[in-house]
Amino acid sequence: MKKLLVVYAVMLCLFFLYVYDYSRSDKAGSAAGESGSPLVGNLSEKFVMVTFQSGIEYWKSGLKGFEDAAQLFNVSVEYRGAAHYDVHEQMTVLEQVIAKKPAGIAVSAIDSEALNPVIDKAYEQGIPIVLFDSDAPLSKASTYIGTNNMEAGSAAARQMAEFLDEKGETAVITQPRQYNQEERTEGFKQTIEQHYPKMKVYAVLDGKGDELTSKKEAAAILKKNPDIQGIFTTEANGASGVAQAVKAAGLEKKVHIIGFDKDKKTLDGIKDGTISATLGQDTWQMGYWSLHMLFYSNRHLKDTRSLPSSIDTGITIITKENVEAYYAND
Amino acid sequence: MKKLLVVYAVMLCLFFLYVYDYSRSDKAGSAAGESGSPLVGNLSEKFVMVTFQSGIEYWKSGLKGFEDAAQLFNVSVEYRGAAHYDVHEQMTVLEQVIAKKPAGIAVSAIDSEALNPVIDKAYEQGIPIVLFDSDAPLSKASTYIGTNNMEAGSAAARQMAEFLDEKGETAVITQPRQYNQEERTEGFKQTIEQHYPKMKVYAVLDGKGDELTSKKEAAAILKKNPDIQGIFTTEANGASGVAQAVKAAGLEKKVHIIGFDKDKKTLDGIKDGTISATLGQDTWQMGYWSLHMLFYSNRHLKDTRSLPSSIDTGITIITKENVEAYYAND
Repeated sequence: MKKLLVVYAVMLCLFFLYVYDYSRSDKAGSAAGESGSPLVGNLSEKFVMVTFQSGIEYWKSGLKGFEDAAQLFNVSVEYRGAAHYDVHEQMTVLEQVIAKKPAGIAVSAIDSEALNPVIDKAYEQGIPIVLFDSDAPLSKASTYIGTNNMEAGSAAARQMAEFLDEKGETAVITQPRQYNQEERTEGFKQTIEQHYPKMKVYAVLDGKGDELTSKKEAAAILKKNPDIQGIFTTEANGASGVAQAVKAAGLEKKVHIIGFDKDKKTLDGIKDGTISATLGQDTWQMGYWSLHMLFYSNRHLKDTRSLPSSIDTGITIITKENVEAYYAND
Repeated sequence: MKKLLVVYAVMLCLFFLYVYDYSRSDKAGSAAGESGSPLVGNLSEKFVMVTFQSGIEYWKSGLKGFEDAAQLFNVSVEYRGAAHYDVHEQMTVLEQVIAKKPAGIAVSAIDSEALNPVIDKAYEQGIPIVLFDSDAPLSKASTYIGTNNMEAGSAAARQMAEFLDEKGETAVITQPRQYNQEERTEGFKQTIEQHYPKMKVYAVLDGKGDELTSKKEAAAILKKNPDIQGIFTTEANGASGVAQAVKAAGLEKKVHIIGFDKDKKTLDGIKDGTISATLGQDTWQMGYWSLHMLFYSNRHLKDTRSLPSSIDTGITIITKENVEAYYAND
């Protein structure tokens, strides 16, 4: 009898516990429903960032932006890069990524055309795909997120004109066929042609995105044309190479170098005066908004409406006057 | 003894219930933390869209995009417009909106410069402010969301060249000092000058954003220069007015009209052949992404990092071949 009473009491308690749990889970359910925003993803949604020439400092901040946005949406990211500056290698990496059918792909194109068939393949398989940093404008990717590179080249030209008092010869060291750099070169050339009649772009050279090649090209052109007073390098590794060539030729006081991006070597060069300026891109934003476009596309948050055709993340001109602020960032 | 046992049993149960409840509320707390996304706002956050010339069909779709994004974030919107096409009236409306300290303001600027002091005032008071549709590029607003209007003008020129077999005289009917239209005009002129040596922009006229004025200006220029074969109108009300002038002059078979936007009158004109084409903007996206930028800015979702400098929402060329699809939309 005693035992039975205890059993009853325990059963009664368990029953209340059950009822209580049921009502709790019901409340929890509706609460989740209310705050169950379409903007909250889940960690099984994986978004992949694909670059070329992986491992360089340049991509870090973009990946951080990609990760920060993923955290905002509670989704996962993966980073894949071709180890070398090689079109075929990036194509292979991109093919491998597509085969895994991720929730979306953000790719920075090493070549403005060669990757199009692979990019279009992702699109045709319904995998959201955007371009960041370097566009492939004729591909089927929905959006380009990055610097308006014509505008950046134009800003470099205006800055060069200021350094050179609007007269003198210049050269550009770039990487042909990489669309962002083609545009920077074009923006630089057009602005000088249209607005600075006493200035000239004497040569456009291929630095292969490489410090040593940029150094060699700069040395050669300075030897060939001693009138050159300004060199604009359109990518991150060029400025420090060009600075070495200028120094070796003893022309530090004459030749102004404008670089691109905020690599430590470039910032150091600005600080010690061997590089006159560099154009800072907001690579963090590129990654951040890339993930946004992919997440929205994957979740059909905008029905059948299209995404923006491009997002311009802007540039900042960095000179000796403001260089300190850029060491801490990113 | 019996009673004591029951009391013990009940107390034990209550203790377990307490422990269970504690652990549940703990879990619920962390679950709310996980799904308590920073992207879920609250309805007391009010974002305001400010236009000029309110009440016209043109703004509807942009406001819908603004509202759709507000629903996504669970925040409120309000729509305020100057009743007339009047700079001072828009300035007054904007001042009134700022005085209420809303969570953010999206403004389409009637004038590319005159509004700057009022826009900057919002910025200085810490109220997030963006420009959509028509920019004020020298203001302190963070982002421009809308059509890349240089690009749109350029697309209109290419389309006109196709209609005119790349030869003949053209005119532009626009509204000077409204930045989006200045750019469309400039994009049109530059593209014709640079790429179509047998074409010419004979005149750029002020249609005052008005059907009747556009009709009068078109009639006058067609009388003055009978060689004109193409007229590009850079805003929504122009094309139908120009079509009336062309018809009255009996020149329907000779003069091609390219309009802007997707107003019913324009689409009807394309359908019946009096208007050759129009450039469709994605105004829904302008409102949609404007609210995004304001929400992110208001909630400091990106720390101290800046927003994109611009978002290009793209254009579509609408001709007789695809016009039907645009009646249903928006």
